[in-house]
Amino acid sequence: MDRIPILKMGPFLLVTIQVDLYDRLALNLENDLISMVSKTGARGVLIDISAVSIVDSFMGRILGNIASMSRIMDAETVVVGMQPAVAITLVELGLTLQGVYTALDVEKGMELLRDKIGVMNDPEEDEEEPDDSND
Amino acid sequence: MDRIPILKMGPFLLVTIQVDLYDRLALNLENDLISMVSKTGARGVLIDISAVSIVDSFMGRILGNIASMSRIMDAETVVVGMQPAVAITLVELGLTLQGVYTALDVEKGMELLRDKIGVMNDPEEDEEEPDDSND
Repeated sequence: MDRIPILKMGPFLLVTIQVDLYDRLALNLENDLISMVSKTGARGVLIDISAVSIVDSFMGRILGNIASMSRIMDAETVVVGMQPAVAITLVELGLTLQGVYTALDVEKGMELLRDKIGVMNDPEEDEEEPDDSND
Repeated sequence: MDRIPILKMGPFLLVTIQVDLYDRLALNLENDLISMVSKTGARGVLIDISAVSIVDSFMGRILGNIASMSRIMDAETVVVGMQPAVAITLVELGLTLQGVYTALDVEKGMELLRDKIGVMNDPEEDEEEPDDSND
């Protein structure tokens, strides 16, 4: 398999990682995700890693890369379903996944993304109403 | 890998098949799906096979099994993302996936499931209103 499928769900993209991310697969995933964000105008990327039981620094770096690339394209990245052992390993490896949001499962991840998008939209709406209620 | 992750999204379950379904993996998937339907009360199962490029009669039978089992548990099954070559092969194999709904992608599959659930709920709501409008 050379590609991991990317599913479009409303304003979000969903990727389920079920296999070991070797070099070419990871690069393809990065490319495909960025193309999909650009093509669909997605505002969020959900990466489900509940099937991943072994993690290494390469995987950590790929997740960080995807998050950084997505942010430049105005999409937030949430990693969901991390197994406890994976979290332990990541911290022991010194990888704290900076810039990557995490959530327990896909539903909570979607809520988080909706909040993020909401928070990003709200200030603009508020700017239109002058704040006259100050004492 | 012994298990394919099952993601809960509202009233639906989502499964992305990315690897060849050998015997044990397929049996685990059937068991896990039915347990999840029972545990979560899910009304629909979405199976994404966009990453599947080779299909055989075993795979066809597994999809049919899952659909039949889910229906007994009061959940509909929609297979989404089928590649054209897979559809051709299925028909050539004489497998017409009876009892399995199909849709082009996850979004259309979800719409279809919502329609199905809506259709199933509507008659009950209508029953409460006596039908006096007959001539």
